[in-house]
Amino acid sequence: MKYAIGIDIGGTNTKFGISNEQGEIFAQGKIKTQEYSEIKPYIDTVYKELESIIPSNIDHADILGIGIGAPNANFHDGTLVNPPNLPWKNIVPLAEIVKERFELPAIITNDANAAALGEMTYGNAKHLKDFVVLTVGTGLGSGIVINGEIVYGYHGFAGELGHTLVNANGRFCGCGKRGCLETYVSATGIRRTVYKLMADYNEPSLLRSISFDDLSTKTITEAAKRGDHIAIEAFKYTGRVLGMKLSDFVVHTDPQAIFLLGGLAKAGKHLFEPARENLEKFLMPMFRGRKVRLLPSGLKDDDAPILGASSLVWKYINAK
Amino acid sequence: MKYAIGIDIGGTNTKFGISNEQGEIFAQGKIKTQEYSEIKPYIDTVYKELESIIPSNIDHADILGIGIGAPNANFHDGTLVNPPNLPWKNIVPLAEIVKERFELPAIITNDANAAALGEMTYGNAKHLKDFVVLTVGTGLGSGIVINGEIVYGYHGFAGELGHTLVNANGRFCGCGKRGCLETYVSATGIRRTVYKLMADYNEPSLLRSISFDDLSTKTITEAAKRGDHIAIEAFKYTGRVLGMKLSDFVVHTDPQAIFLLGGLAKAGKHLFEPARENLEKFLMPMFRGRKVRLLPSGLKDDDAPILGASSLVWKYINAK
Repeated sequence: MKYAIGIDIGGTNTKFGISNEQGEIFAQGKIKTQEYSEIKPYIDTVYKELESIIPSNIDHADILGIGIGAPNANFHDGTLVNPPNLPWKNIVPLAEIVKERFELPAIITNDANAAALGEMTYGNAKHLKDFVVLTVGTGLGSGIVINGEIVYGYHGFAGELGHTLVNANGRFCGCGKRGCLETYVSATGIRRTVYKLMADYNEPSLLRSISFDDLSTKTITEAAKRGDHIAIEAFKYTGRVLGMKLSDFVVHTDPQAIFLLGGLAKAGKHLFEPARENLEKFLMPMFRGRKVRLLPSGLKDDDAPILGASSLVWKYINAK
Repeated sequence: MKYAIGIDIGGTNTKFGISNEQGEIFAQGKIKTQEYSEIKPYIDTVYKELESIIPSNIDHADILGIGIGAPNANFHDGTLVNPPNLPWKNIVPLAEIVKERFELPAIITNDANAAALGEMTYGNAKHLKDFVVLTVGTGLGSGIVINGEIVYGYHGFAGELGHTLVNANGRFCGCGKRGCLETYVSATGIRRTVYKLMADYNEPSLLRSISFDDLSTKTITEAAKRGDHIAIEAFKYTGRVLGMKLSDFVVHTDPQAIFLLGGLAKAGKHLFEPARENLEKFLMPMFRGRKVRLLPSGLKDDDAPILGASSLVWKYINAK
């Protein structure tokens, strides 16, 4: 049997694992990304952790390569470019460093492109060739697939839909701009919306006893499910902004489906209903009639990052 | 020598001509689209006109096919779908009708996709593989090219950037929505802006003596070149809206360049300067530094529609 290593580099956690082409994961682990201010000791740790968890019956010679999903990762040249939520600045030649340490081919792309590839290989996009995946975590990432291929873009940075504009005078974004979609539609975005709504309205809310730092998407989702007005309104607002911007996305590449992946997507109808309603409402009439479906991802949250990253190996390294 | 017929169906004029693969046009003509309430007599007229102008030394057997650019044209199934500015409603099986009348293969796509193909074959995008063409005429059309291929989309409707949202409570659009980009950035859009500015400001203007119906992009451009305040501000406003939305487009497909084609693009610096400035300003920082160029089309306005449409023949029919 052949194997692939998948590494997902997130602002909080780095997740890694080893799987086969059928998507079975044989071992996985994680470390805290922020504890490593230098890239080489960080990759060293990932290497050692993987070495310790990979089952002894897996031969190094059967591992075909390493796929890596990371924010601001450039598929073309294998670098990370000033990732705002990661501890390493400027241009990091990540693929090269990983290749040297592991003595294996390495391929990187942004985490949302990896997620889109994972969705196409193992998830709900298995038989689709034209779709968009939005990964809604701390930020909002996106991967665009056209005719079965990820769109990487000329400079390697395609699919940054989280940084399209909602409001030129809107919320400050980690990227340096104002009013980016990700400041509204993300775990951080809905938290900001909850706080805005608690400021605007008088209604009591389960969320009023929780500090900004402690407020999680899960807590807001549970509050909404229990009928909490502020939580419900926060999802309505989030869904409205999302649906409105999705109507812009759709007229670009005319996809069959858009998949939502990540914590926010677990709110189910609280997010999907206003998002679908506003997508349809703001869509150019020619595209209306639910031609494009807005759906949850088909991958388990725990598996998605590793399967997404490792699917890079099956697509690009195995094929060589 | 082999030849291709190109037909460009616009809301006002239908232009047609015959050219070779090098882009030499041997004959061209036009008719008024709106004079034909039925599609078959319209195609009959195009056929007869072409028959009368095609030089007698061109053998029918050397004409490889017909390429057609038209609004709301579906590349996949050869139909026109409810084109808002054309006299024929519902679904028109245009490729089929043309094929039967001319006894030649026919291929259609929206006019902006045809323009993008023309730009790639004969214009300023000759050596580019990742770019966007915006055709700024009565409306605003767009063609997206990724890795040398036009993006048609799953339903055949990709590249309708004119109908992305500028302002949810904005100007009424012919498509049925409000606040579409094309209501701001188009020949009609800048005319609306001039009228809005004449209402808002006191300044005298060369444009105050011209009725809405008579006001052309050319007149506004000439007024701007002569220092007319209202005309200059109208271009600034148009460029600002355009630049702002371009920053959204860029993070989708990460192109090398964006080309502007059509009357509005002739305003030169009056449009390009504020557009470039606002594109850079609203762009996600990772994309900044003039990575994407905003440029005028390299095709002559008279030739572009015919060369764009006929390039469909060289790309898809000749290749078969």
